[in-house]
Amino acid sequence: MSLNTLSRTLSRSRLRPSFRTLSLRFSSSSSIQSSPSSCPAPSSQNDARQGQPHFPCVDAHAARASRIMASLSQFRPTPDNTQADTGPEPPYARPNPASYHIYHHPQPLPLSYSPTPLPSFDIAYETWGTLSPAKDNVILLHTGLSASSHAASTDLNPAPGWWEKFIGPGKALDTNQFFVICTNVLGGCYGSTGPSSIEAETGEPWATRFPVLSIFDMVRAQFLLLDHLGVNKLYASVGSSMGAMQSLAAGWLFPERVGKIVSISGTARSTPSSIAMRFAQRSVLMADPNWNNGFYYDGLPPHTGMKLARQIATITYRSGPEWDQRFGRQLRQVPETPTQELGPNRTPALCPDFLIETYLDHQGEQFCLKYDANSLIYISKAMDLFDMTYPSLKALNIKPLPSPTIPSQDQLQQQQHKTSHSKSHPPPVNPPPHLSDLAAGMAPLVDIPTLVLGVQSDILFTVEQQREVADALRMAGNANVSYYELGGVWGHDTFLIDTLNVGGAIRGFLS
Amino acid sequence: MSLNTLSRTLSRSRLRPSFRTLSLRFSSSSSIQSSPSSCPAPSSQNDARQGQPHFPCVDAHAARASRIMASLSQFRPTPDNTQADTGPEPPYARPNPASYHIYHHPQPLPLSYSPTPLPSFDIAYETWGTLSPAKDNVILLHTGLSASSHAASTDLNPAPGWWEKFIGPGKALDTNQFFVICTNVLGGCYGSTGPSSIEAETGEPWATRFPVLSIFDMVRAQFLLLDHLGVNKLYASVGSSMGAMQSLAAGWLFPERVGKIVSISGTARSTPSSIAMRFAQRSVLMADPNWNNGFYYDGLPPHTGMKLARQIATITYRSGPEWDQRFGRQLRQVPETPTQELGPNRTPALCPDFLIETYLDHQGEQFCLKYDANSLIYISKAMDLFDMTYPSLKALNIKPLPSPTIPSQDQLQQQQHKTSHSKSHPPPVNPPPHLSDLAAGMAPLVDIPTLVLGVQSDILFTVEQQREVADALRMAGNANVSYYELGGVWGHDTFLIDTLNVGGAIRGFLS
Repeated sequence: MSLNTLSRTLSRSRLRPSFRTLSLRFSSSSSIQSSPSSCPAPSSQNDARQGQPHFPCVDAHAARASRIMASLSQFRPTPDNTQADTGPEPPYARPNPASYHIYHHPQPLPLSYSPTPLPSFDIAYETWGTLSPAKDNVILLHTGLSASSHAASTDLNPAPGWWEKFIGPGKALDTNQFFVICTNVLGGCYGSTGPSSIEAETGEPWATRFPVLSIFDMVRAQFLLLDHLGVNKLYASVGSSMGAMQSLAAGWLFPERVGKIVSISGTARSTPSSIAMRFAQRSVLMADPNWNNGFYYDGLPPHTGMKLARQIATITYRSGPEWDQRFGRQLRQVPETPTQELGPNRTPALCPDFLIETYLDHQGEQFCLKYDANSLIYISKAMDLFDMTYPSLKALNIKPLPSPTIPSQDQLQQQQHKTSHSKSHPPPVNPPPHLSDLAAGMAPLVDIPTLVLGVQSDILFTVEQQREVADALRMAGNANVSYYELGGVWGHDTFLIDTLNVGGAIRGFLS
Repeated sequence: MSLNTLSRTLSRSRLRPSFRTLSLRFSSSSSIQSSPSSCPAPSSQNDARQGQPHFPCVDAHAARASRIMASLSQFRPTPDNTQADTGPEPPYARPNPASYHIYHHPQPLPLSYSPTPLPSFDIAYETWGTLSPAKDNVILLHTGLSASSHAASTDLNPAPGWWEKFIGPGKALDTNQFFVICTNVLGGCYGSTGPSSIEAETGEPWATRFPVLSIFDMVRAQFLLLDHLGVNKLYASVGSSMGAMQSLAAGWLFPERVGKIVSISGTARSTPSSIAMRFAQRSVLMADPNWNNGFYYDGLPPHTGMKLARQIATITYRSGPEWDQRFGRQLRQVPETPTQELGPNRTPALCPDFLIETYLDHQGEQFCLKYDANSLIYISKAMDLFDMTYPSLKALNIKPLPSPTIPSQDQLQQQQHKTSHSKSHPPPVNPPPHLSDLAAGMAPLVDIPTLVLGVQSDILFTVEQQREVADALRMAGNANVSYYELGGVWGHDTFLIDTLNVGGAIRGFLS
């Protein structure tokens, strides 16, 4: 970044309100703050200086902005560092290219929603285990929204991955048997092409000129990587959350190349409730002035919007019962500022005061500089758009679709006798229209054994959606659907935590 | 507002990023936007001007700011209008004092969390029906978070109220029989004293120098109004949502002055989940630079933060099943801009595109200028703080508490035979500790017949919390607890909608 650019960034003045907020704590010269009061004010906000309220949780946004600006200024060009001027990649989400592999696909990728293909793309990936000579032991692992390809530690990157406990010798994805591949998703910011990548035509980041993606686009990019690796057929396609969408989409796009499907806490059709929660996140992010219509890569990223979005997301990832047990109504015992009173005279604060609030605040703070805001927007939108009903898939026009065929109730009942799993969860006798549409849409998956696993305390991908996936597959005629519902209090995040039950179901299904 | 003040407000520059956002749509001279691209961009964002993305849903914030500033500028002083300079009340939430009554209490009000009392206060109220000569037919109706005293139409204000269908001759609150009083809550912005009110000592709005309130403080202010009206004992205390908290708190503070209690979709102890949802709303509000630590009354209010907060709140007010039925996965059919393509070539937009998104956007837009941001923060905090467990009430030190006494299981079983209602929902045999604490805390309500009504699809005040209220009251020894659970798809908002079942239960209980 040049000095000029930095200066322009500063002059764009998105920092100014923050600096002003900071200054309020040390000055009462502002016209609207000039009347100090001796009246009681909310305790932790009640600064010793003249009873003037201040809010550490709000000041934190300005402090973060200052830290980011300081780190950006390190990229000012020097005689030894002229390259810094060309460095458009945001430092807050800069991946380490030495820690994973990159496949560069030089040809255009056709897209679901765009008449113009993506000119070329990169896919970052990591692997575990050994590829068999016949290349028939490959598991393609799909990630959730914001995860990188680093699902487990590797020689290149020994840090624990996001599914560390599930990948390795003797684990759910047994690397004594399988060769596991995990990619950063197309649209992401951890090495794969996304909105933060440079658009060759302009030499600038794509930003919001990047085309809207579908889950199917992401999967097609993955299969071009498989082509490159010479892998014709997957032993299994495995994923949780958004990864479960991809896992199902893989079977739909390439039924002859997918041996088994694992869909954990996913859906075949995003519901209004889950769209609403992701819309709320996108809204707070896009309302951050730093988002700047997506063009923030040479200045401050929308770090505050990202923090707020993550707080909302975290609410959907866990469950009320867990928080009852873990936090209850306990208050913070670590003061937010050195002067905060937590003793017997403690009075409530408007900033985070309950442990549940400090937990959400912390989750937001931890995340807000780790991920690219535009990637969050594009990928969450792709999740909203995911819909495997026949009419929706037909409108996509990404693959010729035969006329819908759904087995009769008689055929369904015969199929139920083929598998003991079905007996404990038979498909509904009078399915609603969208379920029939879903069965018709998912017909290409009829011959792929599929594990569907859901969690009863999941409020984002509800257990009703898990039943819907299993029902639709069975209505389509799939006689090899394994279906499990887990209890527990961990909600959507169960797939990251419950090695025993989630891992056990996967291991059993894959063996 | 003086010209100087207006000028200062503008120079504070919170508008500047918005103006800049607007200007992006008409200029490509910005350094970071100077490279028009022919590549595909998200459809509705893809402006005809050189493929430059823009976002109507984000521009809406700037447009709203301009509208507000224009209305603020109407208050510039003129020779005929010198009063305008002193007008500190925000026009976006200015109530109409002619449409309700105001009781001014000139003495100090002691507060739960503050060593210093509130010096004096106003309470706005409206009434329906006729006060009996013995003043023994009074129903005190408590509101939810953001409602005014206008629960139903009156001669002073013929507009429909927020509970219009429930108040009137022959309705749930039958004005042929009862004299109904509804107040704007202390801390609110519709006529009662709150953060937007003028602090006498400074002549300025309290803003965040206003003390943190409790639900009990609000109720004590209401009973000082009752004293003023000469009402010694209520026929019933009735409320839904936060109003249910107040309804229970009234019985707890003044057991001898409350004849019956109605608690609909409320709680006796806010849970981490509901705190989390309100925390998310406060966070987006307080992060809006216009919030300015609460001191925004002479400038732009945090309208964008309010809109975002209301979007989040709306998600908690309704339920997924209702949205499945009402919106499904339908897309908007009204273009967001004149150029938005909704025909066969439609591609997804990052701005609201699904009907569920336009619904939430609309709800936020409708609300954001109707309510005071600080009132939202203070009242939602009071809800979080509400906890009727014995230790929590004892710590409040607002009323002497006897030692806790809880009946034995034998006594409980005897009590269950006294009422048929209890048989369908007996108290738990092995209650968790917080339930015993709740029973001990709610002991003062032991002799007050209470109706507890909840909704199974409510995700904010879950049905488990309704059961908890009923269980605790019964464990405390209350033999007159009526308990109903409603089905349906309306979630928390059921109390505003379901006249038949909610209204019927109330009418039956009060008769």
